[in-house]
Amino acid sequence: MAVYTDVPDQALNRFLETFNIGTALSFKGIAEGVENSNFLLKTTQGSYILTLYEKRVAEADLPFFIDLMEHLADKGLDCPRPIKNREGVALGQLQGRPAAIVTFLDGMAIQTPSVDQCHALGAALARLHLATADFSGRRPNALGQPSWRALYEQSKGRASSVQPGLEATIEQELAHLDKAWPTDLPSGVIHADLFTDNVFFKGPELSGFIDFYFACNDAYAYDIAVCLNDWCFATHEEMDSAKAAALMLGYRSQRPLSAVELAALPTLLRGSAMRFLLTRLYDYLSVPPGALVTPKDPLEYASKLRFHQTHPATVFGASPEKVAFPS
Amino acid sequence: MAVYTDVPDQALNRFLETFNIGTALSFKGIAEGVENSNFLLKTTQGSYILTLYEKRVAEADLPFFIDLMEHLADKGLDCPRPIKNREGVALGQLQGRPAAIVTFLDGMAIQTPSVDQCHALGAALARLHLATADFSGRRPNALGQPSWRALYEQSKGRASSVQPGLEATIEQELAHLDKAWPTDLPSGVIHADLFTDNVFFKGPELSGFIDFYFACNDAYAYDIAVCLNDWCFATHEEMDSAKAAALMLGYRSQRPLSAVELAALPTLLRGSAMRFLLTRLYDYLSVPPGALVTPKDPLEYASKLRFHQTHPATVFGASPEKVAFPS
Repeated sequence: MAVYTDVPDQALNRFLETFNIGTALSFKGIAEGVENSNFLLKTTQGSYILTLYEKRVAEADLPFFIDLMEHLADKGLDCPRPIKNREGVALGQLQGRPAAIVTFLDGMAIQTPSVDQCHALGAALARLHLATADFSGRRPNALGQPSWRALYEQSKGRASSVQPGLEATIEQELAHLDKAWPTDLPSGVIHADLFTDNVFFKGPELSGFIDFYFACNDAYAYDIAVCLNDWCFATHEEMDSAKAAALMLGYRSQRPLSAVELAALPTLLRGSAMRFLLTRLYDYLSVPPGALVTPKDPLEYASKLRFHQTHPATVFGASPEKVAFPS
Repeated sequence: MAVYTDVPDQALNRFLETFNIGTALSFKGIAEGVENSNFLLKTTQGSYILTLYEKRVAEADLPFFIDLMEHLADKGLDCPRPIKNREGVALGQLQGRPAAIVTFLDGMAIQTPSVDQCHALGAALARLHLATADFSGRRPNALGQPSWRALYEQSKGRASSVQPGLEATIEQELAHLDKAWPTDLPSGVIHADLFTDNVFFKGPELSGFIDFYFACNDAYAYDIAVCLNDWCFATHEEMDSAKAAALMLGYRSQRPLSAVELAALPTLLRGSAMRFLLTRLYDYLSVPPGALVTPKDPLEYASKLRFHQTHPATVFGASPEKVAFPS
């Protein structure tokens, strides 16, 4: 949860005067996103989310994120739409921070997705990929495979204090991924962080995606791997093959997967597990003792990594002809 | 800010089934209140606040708070109204914590109140006091004058590390308050924590009070002192006499103040400053090093206490005939 910057009523009212969305009726800091300060803003014209971008988000990346949300909303995808001010600009300045107002998206994050919800996610993810095909913005994946060794260096020497043997596990896997990582996959703009808390449902219906602040250019199939790792495990130690199958079916109902993408999935699943293991490990080791925040469990992703290491072909097959899902 | 307990979507939906307020459309943890977990809940029927009562609130006190809010709402005061479930009970259980749903109150907290807003606050505070005259619930003030010495004992020996000389200041003041504290003032149910963040305005209009979780039985004039100390200081070192006058005028427009109440105000102001100095001091000294919360500044209230010590009669007069405000 995160409200890092306080916004006094007078500063808010001055900021709102630069927009054409009415005057404030209510304004509450919300516990959503971990990088930025987010507020639920109710005005005489509707409900919005006001975001103040904090230091963990590179200011130079903000136009990419804002333009992407606008592009997706224009394409009819359910995601927050940035509101332009009276001068036609969505990105402003409030309390010394870059700030933007986006439309409020109804719906609720689910904690334990059903098979049907995994299917809905897969289909919506594919539609997201298709909708970004003609998006001109570009942002390299700052947390992509080439960055992982440097990321690990920041936790090295302390990793095994979290779990005995974790350093060896990571080092061997990094070496494997260096060799096995595919670089020729169909790529474009991906969400890159589509965990259950960034997907809203209204009852059984998927109502939209939020939090595009890790979006970047990378392999589409890597986005699938991120989702499979978060949405489709029965426990941290075992994948739920029905949910995984449903997610894949949903995706392929909208966008076909090529043979190279299917063949790469086992590697992408290991890599995606590594990426979240490394960032969580770093966060876990960086939280000051006694701090009132609970960092996310890095060992969840150590377990998921080990699952993929030991089940390379069970779920997806090492080659397309072994893939367990109907096309 | 505070969301201490996570509420998964399925648990929320089961809880909502016991009420008659529709199904959830949106659910967000909000940064409001420091004692409890608060969520903004939007359903097919309206907007609500769901509160999970955490360990800092005594469970035995909850019926008092819930009944008080209901009593005030019945009397037409603008405050959250507890929603009764299908069995006619407002207090339930969610995620192992006592929980209640109250109506959502539009409006925004202001950071720097104007003279007019201080007048509006005074009038609304008096209406609150009048509206509780026939409320049958009773709750002693757990943070009232008799508790302050024990509260201080928890910070003693460390207080002067926050500011040199602070221990002597507190000890001398506690001795003074022991002797001077009035015990014969008109009393009833008071809010006891009516800081600006617990009062909402819509434009110039006061739209209501929230956060009744310090409400208790104590002197009405003590509630005025709490408000004067938060709302009517130009800096931490100096009272704004125009704002103080406006607050008093507003109050007295609704409920007359007796001679004993006016005469007691200088002592009540010192006592109220002491109460917030002591709780903030304790919180300040209890925050673990490196924790990501910023405790409220105890020295704000040390400064305000010193102002009252050195300006005993400037603002209010030591006796009613010296009071600077028109009646």
